[in-house]
Amino acid sequence: MSNLTGIDNAAFFKLSYGLFVLTAKDGDKDNGCIINTVSQITDTPKRISLAVNKGNFTHDMILKTGIFNVSVLGIETPFSVFQCFGFQSGRTVDKFADAPEKKRSPNGILYEPRHANSYISGKIISTSDYGTHTLFIADVTEAAVLSAVPSVTYQYYFDHIKPKPPVDSSKKKGYVCKICGYVYEGDVLPPDFVCPLCKHGAADFEKL
Amino acid sequence: MSNLTGIDNAAFFKLSYGLFVLTAKDGDKDNGCIINTVSQITDTPKRISLAVNKGNFTHDMILKTGIFNVSVLGIETPFSVFQCFGFQSGRTVDKFADAPEKKRSPNGILYEPRHANSYISGKIISTSDYGTHTLFIADVTEAAVLSAVPSVTYQYYFDHIKPKPPVDSSKKKGYVCKICGYVYEGDVLPPDFVCPLCKHGAADFEKL
Repeated sequence: MSNLTGIDNAAFFKLSYGLFVLTAKDGDKDNGCIINTVSQITDTPKRISLAVNKGNFTHDMILKTGIFNVSVLGIETPFSVFQCFGFQSGRTVDKFADAPEKKRSPNGILYEPRHANSYISGKIISTSDYGTHTLFIADVTEAAVLSAVPSVTYQYYFDHIKPKPPVDSSKKKGYVCKICGYVYEGDVLPPDFVCPLCKHGAADFEKL
Repeated sequence: MSNLTGIDNAAFFKLSYGLFVLTAKDGDKDNGCIINTVSQITDTPKRISLAVNKGNFTHDMILKTGIFNVSVLGIETPFSVFQCFGFQSGRTVDKFADAPEKKRSPNGILYEPRHANSYISGKIISTSDYGTHTLFIADVTEAAVLSAVPSVTYQYYFDHIKPKPPVDSSKKKGYVCKICGYVYEGDVLPPDFVCPLCKHGAADFEKL
């Protein structure tokens, strides 16, 4: 996108993030989504912040139940895990249907036992509405290390896990989401367009 | 530290962070500190969150003035930059006194022009008190890319930038801060002890 405002979108890609599966449980319904914004805010007591896109069904479940798990993904996480949790909605799919093993932390919520190197259980103490996202602040109720595999960063995901677009995608006309690769086929991308896969806005698309 | 509570402190080191110089200006006083918790929370409008330890003088300056810059450090940043901004206080030292070049963004605040790959200028829209830290939410007023050098992560800093403790440090008795290497010499570390260098608490110390 152009840079008429003095705000270069590329600067935001310099911020370093991990990648996490955020899970919740509402009654018998288990669900999870991929997020990249989990930060510790204080050490005493242990508190974390997470910004979650309102488009995610997991977001609504956490708003309702007030508890969640964050599973910290390791660098050996296959792309299929990102597809499972990031590229479809728990409103229509059981994302854990094909999980080879299911493990619950003491709060009763599933975590990702195979590819996460740790998980943190949280209880929401503050909810702030920021338009497209809710900023949750949570007390940590449990935290466990699962393996010594290094954590995957957003940058590592782009460089080593996310498949490169196939060569013939260049024949498509339209706009590609720089985040997940979704292609919008059309001559003009509406400025309020939101990627149906990863929920990022028009600013994260580029012309093919 | 022991893990009697179900909260394993090591899990928090799995969260991925960048490292940033947070700068502010109050009248003629320029100052900056190192922080590791900057996250984008929404894309439209561009907003970021940052948690800042109240012990930092920069924190107080931002509370007063409401504006700041975040300089995103690259992997080529020398340890001396972390020492300059992280291991001393702007209350007693002019951290920019020896800066070979000073550059200000349009908001009038200095940024780190030599080792940062980008900077983001922000204006505070929300301030939340979380005990040891303040969580600031800010509108982004400017964002610029300075170089293509990859961003340094907390993990990279530990593995490649922070000097390893000298061998004879093992002869010291006491507790070492796992964050910055400060050594508390004494038989018992007070549970409310806070590292005078990096402001982390007793939970981040381990016995030598």
